[in-house]
Amino acid sequence: MSVTAAKGFQAAGIAAGIKENGNPDLALVVNTGPRRAAAGVFTSNRVKAAPVLWSEQVLKSGQLSAVVLNSGGANACTGPKGFQDTHATAEKVAEVLDIGAGEVAVASTGLIGLLLPMDKLLPGVEAAAAQLSEHGGEKAAIAIKTTDTVHKTSVVTKDGWTVGGMAKGAGMLAPGLATMLVVLTTDADLESEALDRALRAATRTTFDRVDSDGCMSTNDTVLLLASGASEATPEYAEFAEAVRTVCDDLGQQLIRDAEGASKDIKVEVVGAASEDDAVEVGRSIARNNLLKCAIHGEDPNWGRVLSAIGTTKAAFEPDRLNVAINGVWVCKNGGVGEDRDKVDMRYREVHIVADLAAGSETAIIWTNDLTADYVHENSAYSS
Amino acid sequence: MSVTAAKGFQAAGIAAGIKENGNPDLALVVNTGPRRAAAGVFTSNRVKAAPVLWSEQVLKSGQLSAVVLNSGGANACTGPKGFQDTHATAEKVAEVLDIGAGEVAVASTGLIGLLLPMDKLLPGVEAAAAQLSEHGGEKAAIAIKTTDTVHKTSVVTKDGWTVGGMAKGAGMLAPGLATMLVVLTTDADLESEALDRALRAATRTTFDRVDSDGCMSTNDTVLLLASGASEATPEYAEFAEAVRTVCDDLGQQLIRDAEGASKDIKVEVVGAASEDDAVEVGRSIARNNLLKCAIHGEDPNWGRVLSAIGTTKAAFEPDRLNVAINGVWVCKNGGVGEDRDKVDMRYREVHIVADLAAGSETAIIWTNDLTADYVHENSAYSS
Repeated sequence: MSVTAAKGFQAAGIAAGIKENGNPDLALVVNTGPRRAAAGVFTSNRVKAAPVLWSEQVLKSGQLSAVVLNSGGANACTGPKGFQDTHATAEKVAEVLDIGAGEVAVASTGLIGLLLPMDKLLPGVEAAAAQLSEHGGEKAAIAIKTTDTVHKTSVVTKDGWTVGGMAKGAGMLAPGLATMLVVLTTDADLESEALDRALRAATRTTFDRVDSDGCMSTNDTVLLLASGASEATPEYAEFAEAVRTVCDDLGQQLIRDAEGASKDIKVEVVGAASEDDAVEVGRSIARNNLLKCAIHGEDPNWGRVLSAIGTTKAAFEPDRLNVAINGVWVCKNGGVGEDRDKVDMRYREVHIVADLAAGSETAIIWTNDLTADYVHENSAYSS
Repeated sequence: MSVTAAKGFQAAGIAAGIKENGNPDLALVVNTGPRRAAAGVFTSNRVKAAPVLWSEQVLKSGQLSAVVLNSGGANACTGPKGFQDTHATAEKVAEVLDIGAGEVAVASTGLIGLLLPMDKLLPGVEAAAAQLSEHGGEKAAIAIKTTDTVHKTSVVTKDGWTVGGMAKGAGMLAPGLATMLVVLTTDADLESEALDRALRAATRTTFDRVDSDGCMSTNDTVLLLASGASEATPEYAEFAEAVRTVCDDLGQQLIRDAEGASKDIKVEVVGAASEDDAVEVGRSIARNNLLKCAIHGEDPNWGRVLSAIGTTKAAFEPDRLNVAINGVWVCKNGGVGEDRDKVDMRYREVHIVADLAAGSETAIIWTNDLTADYVHENSAYSS
């Protein structure tokens, strides 16, 4: 399934030896056509990895024939040599597939500041190409994992056409435009402009509202490739909704597998004067370390929600704020509300509603709790 | 010492029973004159505790005769009743000291969203007043502790006059204008305008650049009271520098006692195009959970510094950034620099220098590492 659920795609995932532990670390996704339309969104971090700089450039044509992805190294902050390595990787893919390097997107994930072992990566491209298959989607999804404990795939099938995808991401998970590495494929027959519009609309309310740890990556990449193999051209609205559904599902999977997390927290802001206000408040709540610790301790500490709201520029009056945690309105009109002992926090999902009482706009931001396991995993990651 | 180091002040600290564990929880600081000039800065959080709203109002006169402080409850998000309680506390102080309630500042710290036990607090004010002494500064500093492991005081004595102070603060420590509760006293003879100017100048580059956990409190309060008892009127510049020195020392003590921290991190931004850029970049680095975890693990992970810089709007070119950790330039021109194995991170203080190579402005932000102990302390705080 995954990126090979849609017709017109082949994929592979192999262990090229980039990771020292021998786990799969190289994935290849190929669009066999007949169409090659594509779109992409990338990190808004101003420190961009070499593969992001390359792929942004390549995408300007609105066409992609292949995507090569590696885990085991982000190829970020690696200077001119890092960019040369990305270029050489695309050239190698072009050579083995007999296409142009300008049709090949590159994505990398792993530690920042290390050069990739090209003596392993380039032979790996040949090995992956030899294993390309219409059933290779799952292996590709496995090969892009870093600290992910599970691989993430999602598929929506409509009347005669399909959107599928894979994602990886477990830390440095607060995308500015996208999150970590995601490849979506469809066999719908659409121009790159429609793909771009649908992809930006989808990521804006899905990946862009996942904020696990407030840390924006240098490598975030979301690509959408269309083969046209279904020979179906869906209505734009229906197609956009399918893309949004897949993005939302993959975003949820990212949150559920976030590093060290024991709780998935849905921060729903309602009653906002504008959507921007709702997003700003949701993100402020989602990034509040003290609240994230409290949720970890199953403590419905609404005071920390209010202190987070108070740091924003959103429209609200402090004495009109209301907060519900798992359905109990523990804060009413900026003060003590229903009995906090009524809040049941035994389950993994926690739902916080912050009512700004200032309008009718809403937004949902997803985050995780802050745990000792997160600290452990991220104090030992590069060691 | 502390707030009674300067002439013209008395203080007391007692256990009023506000804290259930019986620890000291009520402090009183009284200016015995002959002058009563005062200034204050408060949290810029828009959700402000009742005592902050009260004290901001009182300070408009530029005069204060007394400050009453309690730990064991923040009196934040407590609605009209919370404000009535603050008012009643000031009235009680006024009654026992035979002054006006409008000369009494109130400060509170502890859990948000709980009403204070006034049946214990008001008798506590009488008990504290009975123990007022020119040697009471240390007891007052002890009584305002919450999760602080040590009390914090600082004194600078110049030619014939003194500035002293006390502070508390261990979590929710990222002041917008001030940090948690600080009371400074001086026996210099100065008008409130000079006090205000010196205090704002001092806090802007001291408390305001302490960012332990990115969480801004609802209760931050810094007060400066001048008795004039020394009969000395120092030069403004010399006085302002003394105030800055005491604030800087207390800010350092706050960082060293931050909840769960094992490392104190000095984030020094140099080569910035403006001071605002330097502060924005410093704060972004200081708030990066992944970097804070890495420092905890004694991992000189400069890639996380660059990813934090990349999220700011500051002027810089990614390929000109340089980063030193404890004196080793591990990142040069946006890529790999000196050998990271040369970085010695065994000691508590860690010094990160981020060179934006875009100008000559600088700023220093102090923060801490992120530890499992922080998570533990803040997931269990209210339980």
